[in-house]
Amino acid sequence: MRLAVIPGDGIGPEVVAEGLKVLRAVAPDVESTPYDLGASRWQRTGELLPDTVLDELRQHDGILLGAIGDPSVPPGILERGLLLRLRFELDHHVNLRPARLFDGVRSPLAGPGAIDMLCVREGTEGPYVGNGGVLRRDTPHEVATEVSLNTAFGVERVVRYAFERAVARPRKHLTLIHKTNVLTHAGSLWSRTVEEVSAEFPEVTVAYQHVDAASMFFVTDPGRFDVIVTDNLFGDIVTDLAAAVTGGIGLAASGNLDASGTNPSMFEPVHGSAPDIAGTGVADPTATVLSVGLLLEHLGRADQARKVNAAVAFDLSTRDPQAPVRTQEVGDRLAALAGG
Amino acid sequence: MRLAVIPGDGIGPEVVAEGLKVLRAVAPDVESTPYDLGASRWQRTGELLPDTVLDELRQHDGILLGAIGDPSVPPGILERGLLLRLRFELDHHVNLRPARLFDGVRSPLAGPGAIDMLCVREGTEGPYVGNGGVLRRDTPHEVATEVSLNTAFGVERVVRYAFERAVARPRKHLTLIHKTNVLTHAGSLWSRTVEEVSAEFPEVTVAYQHVDAASMFFVTDPGRFDVIVTDNLFGDIVTDLAAAVTGGIGLAASGNLDASGTNPSMFEPVHGSAPDIAGTGVADPTATVLSVGLLLEHLGRADQARKVNAAVAFDLSTRDPQAPVRTQEVGDRLAALAGG
Ligand SMILES: CC(C)[C@H](C(=O)O)[C@@H](O)C(=O)O
Ligand SMILES: CC(C)[C@H](C(=O)O)[C@@H](O)C(=O)O
Repeated sequence: MRLAVIPGDGIGPEVVAEGLKVLRAVAPDVESTPYDLGASRWQRTGELLPDTVLDELRQHDGILLGAIGDPSVPPGILERGLLLRLRFELDHHVNLRPARLFDGVRSPLAGPGAIDMLCVREGTEGPYVGNGGVLRRDTPHEVATEVSLNTAFGVERVVRYAFERAVARPRKHLTLIHKTNVLTHAGSLWSRTVEEVSAEFPEVTVAYQHVDAASMFFVTDPGRFDVIVTDNLFGDIVTDLAAAVTGGIGLAASGNLDASGTNPSMFEPVHGSAPDIAGTGVADPTATVLSVGLLLEHLGRADQARKVNAAVAFDLSTRDPQAPVRTQEVGDRLAALAGG
Repeated sequence: MRLAVIPGDGIGPEVVAEGLKVLRAVAPDVESTPYDLGASRWQRTGELLPDTVLDELRQHDGILLGAIGDPSVPPGILERGLLLRLRFELDHHVNLRPARLFDGVRSPLAGPGAIDMLCVREGTEGPYVGNGGVLRRDTPHEVATEVSLNTAFGVERVVRYAFERAVARPRKHLTLIHKTNVLTHAGSLWSRTVEEVSAEFPEVTVAYQHVDAASMFFVTDPGRFDVIVTDNLFGDIVTDLAAAVTGGIGLAASGNLDASGTNPSMFEPVHGSAPDIAGTGVADPTATVLSVGLLLEHLGRADQARKVNAAVAFDLSTRDPQAPVRTQEVGDRLAALAGG
């Protein structure tokens, strides 16, 4: 397995080191190549994602990313120039975010019940396309626009992916989240697409929720969700909600997939670079390790993925929730469990 | 006080009847005129909001609305043709949604702490403007767009309103919620506007949260929020989250304000028409009564508003949370408390 690794900023390098430790414990054949991208490279060189680096990344089987970002960088530079550019250039149209409440993990909800959902967020369209502008900036007549672009091609492929995942799960249930009563144009395309594709998956039951009502259900009844499919911006919000009710972004893994397999997919913990705790050795690498699990699953290494996920599940169920996290100790434990 | 009343659909008429009962108990001078608008009028006549009705509504000091909607109506018809049309025609640029965890109310959070926030959601711009379209519908080449429009005029007036509310509250804290790192054009206008207006309110401390991170804080630490200002779509989501963590939309009140006073403002419970329980007498009218409190406050009747709010607070703190709600009994109790 040829793996490109982007440790990035803040706690990124620390959690990636542990993720690689666990990966190597189950997949000794990994050849990893580090790429220096992120806030510090931009500050040193002004470079975000040189084309030559992008070309090299394309030559890999997968990419593992730690975290990108630093408060000293103005908003949008690293996001649009690096993180989102990677998603768009590598056609990561499936942004995959599982959210499961593991045994031993405390939810902020009083009665969370069993939570085990898979959010399938569109990754290359919607309000994220960067189609917008400003007219008469800094005058009383300023107008700023943002355009959400949604194509049949783009919606259909992510909806089909979500159905494929749903049909393979015990509950076989899919919820579309949108705001069809207000965003009637995009909403209609999403609704019609779900309806059409559902004909190919008669075993899958389908539900629809407006994003506002859905957000409430994440708090009052998250167990109702199995697979969720939604657009890029709604997905950004509801996947963080899903993470919050299942123990926080310290445990939230994600995959940015080109489901066609043309480009390498990229796996990253959802948490950011957390510069406040960088270097102190207390960042929880579990989300990165779970992202490694997604990487292995995506590459068809189901046995190895299962070992990683089982190690995390066991470790979480036996951790003392009061004890402080030590990044390396967690990595050591998980590597031993997964590899042993 | 000349009040236009739109009972609407489902449980709307039931909760509005109780809201009016409480209103009359504190403000005997109310002259109310009912307007038949909503799903049933549309189904009978095809009419949504005739211009003559709109003209009549304009002649009032305020509008009280119950709920609009029925599953038999395709998504968007009543929303775009009636609810949103009212907001746009009457320039309801401030969508005001307080969220307070009253004593005696159970939150779905394990440790909610004290929650008392005021969400100021923009009401006439953003992705709600209905600017979008569909190209090549029902073909594999379909493209659907939604345009978010944001103007200096529109953002500035709602941001200023939010600061005015923040400075009048004990904590004097304001949080802007947006997604400036992705929606860079609109985000920049919102950020710059908050920065500029903040110079006029040096006592107010200002924070910023991306909407995804903010959504998590609604679950993990809602007590951090005091006044929130945000755009129309983000506001739709986070106000429902705020409602969820403070006991649900059964208690969530809202005001759609033309803060300039040119047009009458409109007050409505956030819950929908709930057709499943319509006619059974179990809908909770408390959100409508709290909306009446907002109406009174908006009309400068602070003493009457206080009586209504105090009645609700007392009643909630003494209600048996297990006992089923009876719509009329709650209305009777609140009217007696507020008027006595
Ligand atoms: C950093 C940001 C661009 C990104 C997003 O909005 O997609 C992040 O919030 C995420 O969810 O991966
Ligand atoms: C019914 C719908 C148009 C409305 C909105 O999205 O604003 C509702 O959700 C609300 O929050 O008042």
